[in-house]
Amino acid sequence: MTQQAPANAALPEALDTVLQTKFGSRYTTSGGVRAHHGHDESHFPDAPPQAVLFPHTTEEVAEVVMRCAQYGVPLIPYGAGTSLEGHVLAIRGGICLDFSEMNKVLAIRAEDMDVVVQPGVTRKQLNAALHGSGLFFPIDPGADASLGGMAATRASGTNAVRYGTMRDNVLGLTAVMADGSIVRTGSRARKSSAGYDLTRLLIGSEGTLGIITELTVRLHPLPEAVSSAVCAFPDVDSAVRTVIATIQLGVPVARIELLDALTVSAVNRYSKTTLREAPMLFFEFHGSPAGVEEQAGIVQTLAHDHGGLDFEWASRPEERSRLWAARHDVYFASLNLRPGSRGITSDVCVPISRLAECVAGTRDDIAASGFIAPIVGHVGDGNFHTIILVDPDDPAEIERAEALNHRIVERALALGGTCTGEHGVGMGKQHFLAAEHGENAVRAMRLIKQALDPHNLLNPGKVVPWPAD
Amino acid sequence: MTQQAPANAALPEALDTVLQTKFGSRYTTSGGVRAHHGHDESHFPDAPPQAVLFPHTTEEVAEVVMRCAQYGVPLIPYGAGTSLEGHVLAIRGGICLDFSEMNKVLAIRAEDMDVVVQPGVTRKQLNAALHGSGLFFPIDPGADASLGGMAATRASGTNAVRYGTMRDNVLGLTAVMADGSIVRTGSRARKSSAGYDLTRLLIGSEGTLGIITELTVRLHPLPEAVSSAVCAFPDVDSAVRTVIATIQLGVPVARIELLDALTVSAVNRYSKTTLREAPMLFFEFHGSPAGVEEQAGIVQTLAHDHGGLDFEWASRPEERSRLWAARHDVYFASLNLRPGSRGITSDVCVPISRLAECVAGTRDDIAASGFIAPIVGHVGDGNFHTIILVDPDDPAEIERAEALNHRIVERALALGGTCTGEHGVGMGKQHFLAAEHGENAVRAMRLIKQALDPHNLLNPGKVVPWPAD
Repeated sequence: MTQQAPANAALPEALDTVLQTKFGSRYTTSGGVRAHHGHDESHFPDAPPQAVLFPHTTEEVAEVVMRCAQYGVPLIPYGAGTSLEGHVLAIRGGICLDFSEMNKVLAIRAEDMDVVVQPGVTRKQLNAALHGSGLFFPIDPGADASLGGMAATRASGTNAVRYGTMRDNVLGLTAVMADGSIVRTGSRARKSSAGYDLTRLLIGSEGTLGIITELTVRLHPLPEAVSSAVCAFPDVDSAVRTVIATIQLGVPVARIELLDALTVSAVNRYSKTTLREAPMLFFEFHGSPAGVEEQAGIVQTLAHDHGGLDFEWASRPEERSRLWAARHDVYFASLNLRPGSRGITSDVCVPISRLAECVAGTRDDIAASGFIAPIVGHVGDGNFHTIILVDPDDPAEIERAEALNHRIVERALALGGTCTGEHGVGMGKQHFLAAEHGENAVRAMRLIKQALDPHNLLNPGKVVPWPAD
Repeated sequence: MTQQAPANAALPEALDTVLQTKFGSRYTTSGGVRAHHGHDESHFPDAPPQAVLFPHTTEEVAEVVMRCAQYGVPLIPYGAGTSLEGHVLAIRGGICLDFSEMNKVLAIRAEDMDVVVQPGVTRKQLNAALHGSGLFFPIDPGADASLGGMAATRASGTNAVRYGTMRDNVLGLTAVMADGSIVRTGSRARKSSAGYDLTRLLIGSEGTLGIITELTVRLHPLPEAVSSAVCAFPDVDSAVRTVIATIQLGVPVARIELLDALTVSAVNRYSKTTLREAPMLFFEFHGSPAGVEEQAGIVQTLAHDHGGLDFEWASRPEERSRLWAARHDVYFASLNLRPGSRGITSDVCVPISRLAECVAGTRDDIAASGFIAPIVGHVGDGNFHTIILVDPDDPAEIERAEALNHRIVERALALGGTCTGEHGVGMGKQHFLAAEHGENAVRAMRLIKQALDPHNLLNPGKVVPWPAD
């Protein structure tokens, strides 16, 4: 499934030589390494880069960008490779910048509750480094993604309903722009009105406007008390209505996750859990002991009012860990429902008042399609995923799955939602941008891309199609 | 103090005629109306626009922008005129778009906790419209600013420590771009990764990238319980250290405001309060009755530990209103300390750990300068203001005040902070942008401005200097 042209093309010899001289073994054109960097967790065909380079500093990245710009060679930043939308695929060839060796936590400033990290630091690594500080980094997209990648895709995940997304939790960035200039955005102040918000412009730009080489991110105090619970429901609708009531009451729940019955059954098989195979909500509450009790009491009442079948607590840390590990493995558990399959994952997010309607319509679509497609989501934000299981070698089936995905997205847009709550646009969602934002907004995005990257060298072919594309 | 050239220049006759025909009395070149729109709350010389137009719809704004673009005539959006940085001054001439007649609350969606408003709606008007809904709009910059203006300057104010700034509370915007195209950004979903964050790019762009004609903003549940308190301290440092301890403990305080002794004395005189004339913190706690009590108990202990002299509660709504009305009148109370003066207002914001150092150094600078300059601030965010009282007709004094302001900003930048936490750049902070963000970041901002407004027609001369400036 390799896209032939870029994979087989050689880099300009002079560039190849200078990078080899400068970076030694940290620069490679080995087929194995390139192949490893030519795919992610998406169903898109592999597209390996022409070379892979492991930078150690912002200045090195700037030098590589300038040298590549001389030859018109694209650059593709690479974090942990967990993207679901083809972000890291080198569809125009070019050099992959793998940030796994830029993985230092540079400064923990507990007194300001912020931390400076290199982009290759993963969320688990960061939280390990914070051990004993009384602080944690809450953003949790499931996968152990890198912070650079999470910022680039505006990631969020299970805790976003309480702690926000990467948009809300990055204070500042260092980025290398397409001309090789190094830009520092934001400051360590908690708020600022000093000029255009370059930080937020780079967050979610998926490496197409600048390459993130350093991040300052917010931390949060570890909650004094944490409590988790699961509750089964007679049907998805009752579960969703419990979520809506919880959010509308303003309960500051830390996590509130929906799994449909098929997902729960996949989880039981994959993670050896014994959950009741019914639509289910996973909850987590953070706060003072009294606060957690207060929140949990309200939610338990709401669940009961909406037909919740039971409310099982997991208060011990190891029970909680097991529960959330099972939740995080949903993607792989789902793939396991159909061995050899890949997932085409929808990521719609709608206003909470439309969530029940959106989920119900999506379920109807899935039923009509004949696909196996578990539903799971961060429903407190109105965000849910449909993992459509496809045979990656069957183009006709992929086409049918994409048609299903299209219907799911169209419904979400009609309900005032977005085509992607947290996965990003990459290659898979470009054709929805105009439907979601309108042609004028897409044109404004393209003007920004052309202004900041006039030769289309930074992760070309992602987010906003170039005019010639 | 009027800048002569633009004020006296006539608009191209054909443009004048077409706008008069189309808009009738909603378009005026009357000297009085122009003069009213030629100044704000800043100390900058008046600069009236060549005409003032009161649009009623987004489409009207688009038409005016297209017609003005034909003639190269600038456009300056105008909300409530409460800017402190000269944002509304027509320093290159042009037409002022006064949004006071676009002041409808278009849709209150209590079930999603969001609201759609026209840009001329003020924060007090919005909260009045929300009466009985159980929801409120928390952003409170003191002045009864318009939501369009607040979005344009990325405003915040007293509640930001708990509820965030306009950056965090705007879900989507409609804006007219420099070519007259209408762009809709964001969606009603709570989060999205769908493309570049045009919403956040427009927020804080001060009318220089697009003219905001509609906003969808987040609402929050009215807290079940609210409690306010004031506490006097032996010195500013003790008060600031109490704030730092509160934030570092993660207490979700809703407001935490510092007034120095001079400010308290100004407030007593202006608002007829009888506060102890010592450095003082104003607190507000939001939550469940138990939650508020818990928060207040922690903060009271912290205040006591840092030498707090007393802790006076204002639990009755009318007491609270009186207290916060006095807080909001600090700017005018301060001007009253020197009749006939104007304020040059610093707006620095630093990491909380550096706040004590920043305030202490600022106080030393003020003492050395001989100026009357009360200090007041949203210290929970690390943000505080110094209101330097100047004789607006004494250029030498203004120069000395600006030198003082410069020293205050330089210190804040050296401590990792920003030159403006919430007032915006306007005309007054442009020369600090490079020092804060670096030349490369300012260049990126200018590239964006040039891409989106190639003829420099949208609020020219604000935020980022044009190359020829």
